[in-house]
Amino acid sequence: MPTYRAPVEDVNFLLNDVFQIDRYNNLPGFSDASADVRSAIIDEAAKFTEQVLQPLNHSGDLEGCTRHDDGRVSTPKGFKDAFKQLADGGWLGLSAPAEFGGQGLPVSLSQTVNEFMMSANMAFSMYPGLTQGAMAALLVHGSPEQKKTFVPKMVAGQWAGTMNLTEPQCGTDLGLMRTKAVKQADGTYKISGTKIFISGGEQDLTENIVHLVLARIEGAPAGIKGVSLFVVPKIKLNADGSLTGEPNGVSCGSIEEKMGIHGNSTCVLNFDNAIGTLVGEENKGMAAMFVMMNEARLGVGVQGLSQSEVAYQNAAAYARDRLQGRALTGPQAKDKPADPIIVHPDVRRTLMSIRAFNEAARALVVWTSLKSDLAHRSDDQKERQAADDHMGLLTPVIKAMLTDQGFANAVAAQQMFGGHGYIVETGVEQFVRDARIAMIYEGANGIQALDLVGRKLGRDGGRAITAFFNEVTTFAKENGANEAMKPYLAPLTASVQHLQQATMWLMQNAMAKPDNAGAASTDYLHLFGLVTLGYMWARMAKVAQDKLAESGEQPYLKAKLVTGKFFMERMLPETSLRLSRVQSGADTMMELPAEAF
Amino acid sequence: MPTYRAPVEDVNFLLNDVFQIDRYNNLPGFSDASADVRSAIIDEAAKFTEQVLQPLNHSGDLEGCTRHDDGRVSTPKGFKDAFKQLADGGWLGLSAPAEFGGQGLPVSLSQTVNEFMMSANMAFSMYPGLTQGAMAALLVHGSPEQKKTFVPKMVAGQWAGTMNLTEPQCGTDLGLMRTKAVKQADGTYKISGTKIFISGGEQDLTENIVHLVLARIEGAPAGIKGVSLFVVPKIKLNADGSLTGEPNGVSCGSIEEKMGIHGNSTCVLNFDNAIGTLVGEENKGMAAMFVMMNEARLGVGVQGLSQSEVAYQNAAAYARDRLQGRALTGPQAKDKPADPIIVHPDVRRTLMSIRAFNEAARALVVWTSLKSDLAHRSDDQKERQAADDHMGLLTPVIKAMLTDQGFANAVAAQQMFGGHGYIVETGVEQFVRDARIAMIYEGANGIQALDLVGRKLGRDGGRAITAFFNEVTTFAKENGANEAMKPYLAPLTASVQHLQQATMWLMQNAMAKPDNAGAASTDYLHLFGLVTLGYMWARMAKVAQDKLAESGEQPYLKAKLVTGKFFMERMLPETSLRLSRVQSGADTMMELPAEAF
Repeated sequence: MPTYRAPVEDVNFLLNDVFQIDRYNNLPGFSDASADVRSAIIDEAAKFTEQVLQPLNHSGDLEGCTRHDDGRVSTPKGFKDAFKQLADGGWLGLSAPAEFGGQGLPVSLSQTVNEFMMSANMAFSMYPGLTQGAMAALLVHGSPEQKKTFVPKMVAGQWAGTMNLTEPQCGTDLGLMRTKAVKQADGTYKISGTKIFISGGEQDLTENIVHLVLARIEGAPAGIKGVSLFVVPKIKLNADGSLTGEPNGVSCGSIEEKMGIHGNSTCVLNFDNAIGTLVGEENKGMAAMFVMMNEARLGVGVQGLSQSEVAYQNAAAYARDRLQGRALTGPQAKDKPADPIIVHPDVRRTLMSIRAFNEAARALVVWTSLKSDLAHRSDDQKERQAADDHMGLLTPVIKAMLTDQGFANAVAAQQMFGGHGYIVETGVEQFVRDARIAMIYEGANGIQALDLVGRKLGRDGGRAITAFFNEVTTFAKENGANEAMKPYLAPLTASVQHLQQATMWLMQNAMAKPDNAGAASTDYLHLFGLVTLGYMWARMAKVAQDKLAESGEQPYLKAKLVTGKFFMERMLPETSLRLSRVQSGADTMMELPAEAF
Repeated sequence: MPTYRAPVEDVNFLLNDVFQIDRYNNLPGFSDASADVRSAIIDEAAKFTEQVLQPLNHSGDLEGCTRHDDGRVSTPKGFKDAFKQLADGGWLGLSAPAEFGGQGLPVSLSQTVNEFMMSANMAFSMYPGLTQGAMAALLVHGSPEQKKTFVPKMVAGQWAGTMNLTEPQCGTDLGLMRTKAVKQADGTYKISGTKIFISGGEQDLTENIVHLVLARIEGAPAGIKGVSLFVVPKIKLNADGSLTGEPNGVSCGSIEEKMGIHGNSTCVLNFDNAIGTLVGEENKGMAAMFVMMNEARLGVGVQGLSQSEVAYQNAAAYARDRLQGRALTGPQAKDKPADPIIVHPDVRRTLMSIRAFNEAARALVVWTSLKSDLAHRSDDQKERQAADDHMGLLTPVIKAMLTDQGFANAVAAQQMFGGHGYIVETGVEQFVRDARIAMIYEGANGIQALDLVGRKLGRDGGRAITAFFNEVTTFAKENGANEAMKPYLAPLTASVQHLQQATMWLMQNAMAKPDNAGAASTDYLHLFGLVTLGYMWARMAKVAQDKLAESGEQPYLKAKLVTGKFFMERMLPETSLRLSRVQSGADTMMELPAEAF
């Protein structure tokens, strides 16, 4: 049965040493998150996720959710109690504003807690994850009344949140939406239609569910510009915001049988004249929803990392234990019938590849979460804008790269177990099945790539990508004289040049011929992702070297340097292949008629 | 619900045009397989697999196998009748010798039928697949008595076959085996021990099961050199080979719950003084088993291709149908609310990548199967040897490359379906779960890579790899003056040079330091695989060009050329990355102590 240990040392290294978040003590919430407080929270989160959530992961997968004939849905055994502990522990409101009952702590801290939750139990973590996303949308676009009514209850874990976008005929293309909203005399709306794939759409964890629903107001313009956002509680509310006890025309028609995340209920929700209120302005639903989606996309990226991390841990433990064959250089464990398989280079290659990804991906998430904090909390307008640029540019990269590679890593980790990895009882195939969804939902990864290439790159004259290049090349220049940094900076610099060439190629070839952008998008995104991970490794290596020089031999820092070197030697060179694919253009792939496929 | 259409046109193109198997009319069995006969068999196989096996694939996955309290195992509804039709149709003995009731046809033909079966229903196809593997081992190493007793029944589909290697403590490392055999006065052996992961170990399809079992004879040398092979029928036989009706001390202790291939029973088999007879010589069990394993490894490679093919077909159909968004170049289906998603370059990139792999992989399988025919049927000793060299060299490449990439392709195809691809009902996630096992069993892919690098490359002074290089470079030279072939030959030549450099690097660096071989093995295997697929594309392009010149516009041939070009532009350049990884050596990955993982 799998186990999980939260990567506490790694998180502390990132927050304290690499990104030195104490520098931001002047920002709201940061001063409350002193090193001691952070450390206590992280330790507590480790304990909660390791001891409460993880033991429910495999059993939750086996049991799944059950829809009863009356439309109620039961989550797996133990989920309800765990959710109560989560709520009581204040984990839902870690970064929510204090005025609504939250703790107002930095997102760079709460996102690490989210990683722990997802590694421990991805299906479970989606219930609080979507609740946090719904909160975020209400906090930005909701009326004061809506915030007051919904957010404190969600922070307290009494009510959960959901996102209702997809319909049978519309996934990516939300302009095809049919769910309609009819305005009532009292200013509320009656919502009717069918939404599918609604995670946590019905459950038995909370006394109410706050559905954020996209719908089309009668007479609205066609397409995406006629879509509005509504908040629709599962149970109707009294004027004071308390529960009436009366159901609100939303029912779960069925739950889906899925490849994985069985512990999360994926519902068909039927809205039948359900009463809702408008969030933000009429026909501006997408803008409001995007707040939630960006939050959610970063979170989904972390899901990819989370499954890669827990799969790695279990594969490494198995590789240290499983005796099979002898080292190529001769027996190592002479007193045993065979050597542990970790003596084999190919096993180490696999494990090193996964951890080299995980550690850099975690750094990338912390870095970007810190930008999210700055975008919302800095009092310097330029800093806010730069942070916001960074978020916009990096969100699709993190979502797609971390989930593509996180899934591939879960598969690679499963491979270490041989035939045992294919058996349900071993528990590692669940990581593969669970990780798979993260490449799909919140905008399939192909859509992320299009968002990056088609929208984010060129925005504001390329301000975000220019700033990114400046930061990385400045870092390389500043540390260029440092001999010990050469094994990290030389490959990084080469990869940055590949990214620059690819960006240039897009500028020159995609304007006149948009298919060239589409053809390049996925490879460009992965090229970008590799460069960001390479930059994270260079920064971590620098800090590790400095700390080692101060404090002498420390296994953790030594391992960092070796792992970073592995990334530079084996993984970052992929940028060259990605560049060549970008430059090969769209012609060949567009040549065949559709019927030839 | 998924559908399947056997790639009949593609198979005919390969057999008739690319590999021109009519050239071998002088060999046994080939003259019986004239173009007309082949075509009739292929059409019939298409019909059988599309209409009988494929409709049982999804239902078989959902239902799975059931072990009853008395140890009996039921296969999913419909499997028994389908197996009877398979047996009655003579499909089990297509390439088996006529003296045992087979049709003696070329393996290059029967392997294409196997691909159809696997695409249609991979879990089902394992029952006949393992039966054919067991037959092959008995035909090479069995006594005349054993052949006469077992093979005709297996050809007729009355009895099935299994391979019993794995035990809880021994997977890859068969030297750790504990199952023991005790010789009896009458020359038979009593076998006792526990075998796990036995595919088709118990089932309700056949009246008897022929277990091939590896075990250690009392007093045998330790390790792999003390392992012998036995044939152990499930039901004891009379002296004349008929069934006594009495069970033979083999029982199914349990069946595994697995990630996929639910329609195939994966059994724990308990042998308790089961009576068996020795196959081949004492303590030479591995040599005998290797016959079966090589056969099986080629078959498992085809499984990878098969899932990639059926996943592609369904993804392509969905991409032509699903309306979502508009083309980057402006609306294409103006009369519809949105364009079919096949207008998007990123969707085409995915589909082209899969088909470019599938078509070349199929060619590689036909090419190698033809070598298998030559190795067994040619009357020219040199030709037999060369064919045997080819088989030895290419088997690990086909097994690992086709299953790694076949799985990745099934995942990519699933991605085309968005959220619908994650839902069990859609049926495509099954391809991913089923394809996953092929990377693991019959020697995990890491073991294939070690086999290639550690055993096959250097054998007989590198005779096999030298012959391979000669063949490919000769082809490139012979067609070098042909302008139309340049887009295929230039990339091919570059990739061959990468393979040569990688081979050279191994020669220079792996002898003194074996870890360098292990560290390079997987990347070397994929580099090799890419070159073989590139060579297949060059050969197919040549034939397609020649045929087009003769016959004018033909959509099938046009598509071949475009798909081959896509492979050359986008996929073959990966050889450069693989080479750089090979050359980066073992040092960094071997540096950390085991406890640091």
